[in-house]
Amino acid sequence: MDLISKRLEGFAHDLPSEPSSLYDPIAYTLGLGGKRVRPMLTLLGCELFGCPANQAIDIAAAVEVFHNFSLIHDDIMDQAPIRRGRPTVYKAWNTNIAILSGDATLVKAYQLIVNSQLPEFAKVKVLEVFNRVALDVCEGQQFDMDFESNSEISIAQYLKMIELKTAVLLGGALQMGAIVAGAADKDAQLIYDFGRNLGLAFQLQDDLLDVFSTNEKFGKQVGGDIKSNKKTFLLLQALTLAKKRPEIDQKLQQALLLPSENNEVKVQIIKDLYVELGLESLAKSEIDKYFRIATSSLEQITVSDEKKQFILQFIDQLIARET
Amino acid sequence: MDLISKRLEGFAHDLPSEPSSLYDPIAYTLGLGGKRVRPMLTLLGCELFGCPANQAIDIAAAVEVFHNFSLIHDDIMDQAPIRRGRPTVYKAWNTNIAILSGDATLVKAYQLIVNSQLPEFAKVKVLEVFNRVALDVCEGQQFDMDFESNSEISIAQYLKMIELKTAVLLGGALQMGAIVAGAADKDAQLIYDFGRNLGLAFQLQDDLLDVFSTNEKFGKQVGGDIKSNKKTFLLLQALTLAKKRPEIDQKLQQALLLPSENNEVKVQIIKDLYVELGLESLAKSEIDKYFRIATSSLEQITVSDEKKQFILQFIDQLIARET
Repeated sequence: MDLISKRLEGFAHDLPSEPSSLYDPIAYTLGLGGKRVRPMLTLLGCELFGCPANQAIDIAAAVEVFHNFSLIHDDIMDQAPIRRGRPTVYKAWNTNIAILSGDATLVKAYQLIVNSQLPEFAKVKVLEVFNRVALDVCEGQQFDMDFESNSEISIAQYLKMIELKTAVLLGGALQMGAIVAGAADKDAQLIYDFGRNLGLAFQLQDDLLDVFSTNEKFGKQVGGDIKSNKKTFLLLQALTLAKKRPEIDQKLQQALLLPSENNEVKVQIIKDLYVELGLESLAKSEIDKYFRIATSSLEQITVSDEKKQFILQFIDQLIARET
Repeated sequence: MDLISKRLEGFAHDLPSEPSSLYDPIAYTLGLGGKRVRPMLTLLGCELFGCPANQAIDIAAAVEVFHNFSLIHDDIMDQAPIRRGRPTVYKAWNTNIAILSGDATLVKAYQLIVNSQLPEFAKVKVLEVFNRVALDVCEGQQFDMDFESNSEISIAQYLKMIELKTAVLLGGALQMGAIVAGAADKDAQLIYDFGRNLGLAFQLQDDLLDVFSTNEKFGKQVGGDIKSNKKTFLLLQALTLAKKRPEIDQKLQQALLLPSENNEVKVQIIKDLYVELGLESLAKSEIDKYFRIATSSLEQITVSDEKKQFILQFIDQLIARET
């Protein structure tokens, strides 16, 4: 983590001073902090295959810088005024500056890879994964936006969307670390699969915690998804299951139409309906399923269990922090 | 040119069909056409150093796709509703889709380079130039936007802005072609300098034609820059020269304040002032200067004059078409 902070500080420090409205928002966004989970995964992916973490530090930084690019642009699209308690770039500056500094952020992520100390063949391999992941993330964001105006989203479509929008970047971060370490293609694919399924489990966990956690534990307001009628795994499952239970379906449809003055009542009603439909345990078993698939990919990787322990410990810490 | 059209058609054809609102705007923008000057320069840069054009076709396509990315995002920022007689992406779809499909367009440009048939070391060298040019273009666009709200722009600042925003991409397009052909670093730098100075000459020519051409020849409405008080080379020079001629300065300041109902009068007054200040010949000699600097870079390149003729012919065609 210290390694990552230091590299990102150096990166921000080396940004040109002019034009300031292009480069200041990049340093600002990095300065908002965050758990740096993605670059950490790149370093862990590198160490898993017996290579020192510092060899992958520029790639880890590129992964975090890419993540920052997607935050800057997503915040415009989602009209999100606040991130980590501070104004988002398009609010602190304006939309045009957020578009253009986001673009420059993406190019800077590529530059970190291209200008790294890796041998050329490794740069190209990393870039192949990076390109694929970057397009997946764009596709996921597009599906997410499309879903807002589409009343008929299947569970499968939802899972595909969160896979693209958030899970593949976790897989890709690990895979790029593995490539730096010279892992065999099959192992690099397995660690990607591990991260992708882990990402799905985390996202479903997040959907669940939004409803069933407490504010203190969750770190953000519980019930936010319910208040905004967000089509999460839980709501989509509820709508599906309620088709066979008319009395629940009616209550659910009525609750979804409640105006925002009744938000607290709405959260309570929908939470109760979720309980009645057995959604907490259904979601938990789905989450467990993805954790199991992830673990099975990790098990197949041809390195010692001792090395795998570092990754499993990191995941345990993440889960402990989240739940 | 056929080679380029074919490659771009293949590229558009291979775009995924879903999510359509992410990928359709990319094919749409490429379908708007254009002179394909930039990819042509990449092919010419490659041939100049004795390598068949088709070896550089993916890089040429990447250059054009990058150019399209910048058009999609610039049109949002400049609120330009029409391009080549058709609605721009943010108008035909919406701003969010234009942001995100622009992002995907940029990633696809990188993918064309990374997935090309070039040896790895050449890909890395091309990417180094591509990254630098991409950041320059972002910087140029940012300076251009900053200038709108800044009343004190120097000629030097203006020249720096057009160099970054439009000229370096011409230089970079040629340089990337040269890299594909395995040109020596010094020659690759010289062809870059050639293209950059040529780009400056073309942009200044464009400023001049906006005032002194006829509608038929210019292809767009003459006087557009004057009507919008755009800080072009001519206006900035006029403001500077008028400082020593109070009677002209007063007329110029008054004309700049004329409301849009008086646009035709405004164009005539300012054009007359430009003539009175001798700006047509001043601009022409500035354009000639950049053409001469460009030519001098080309002369220093260590290939036969015969090979250089192809590039010079292409430039002559461009000039003939523009003036």
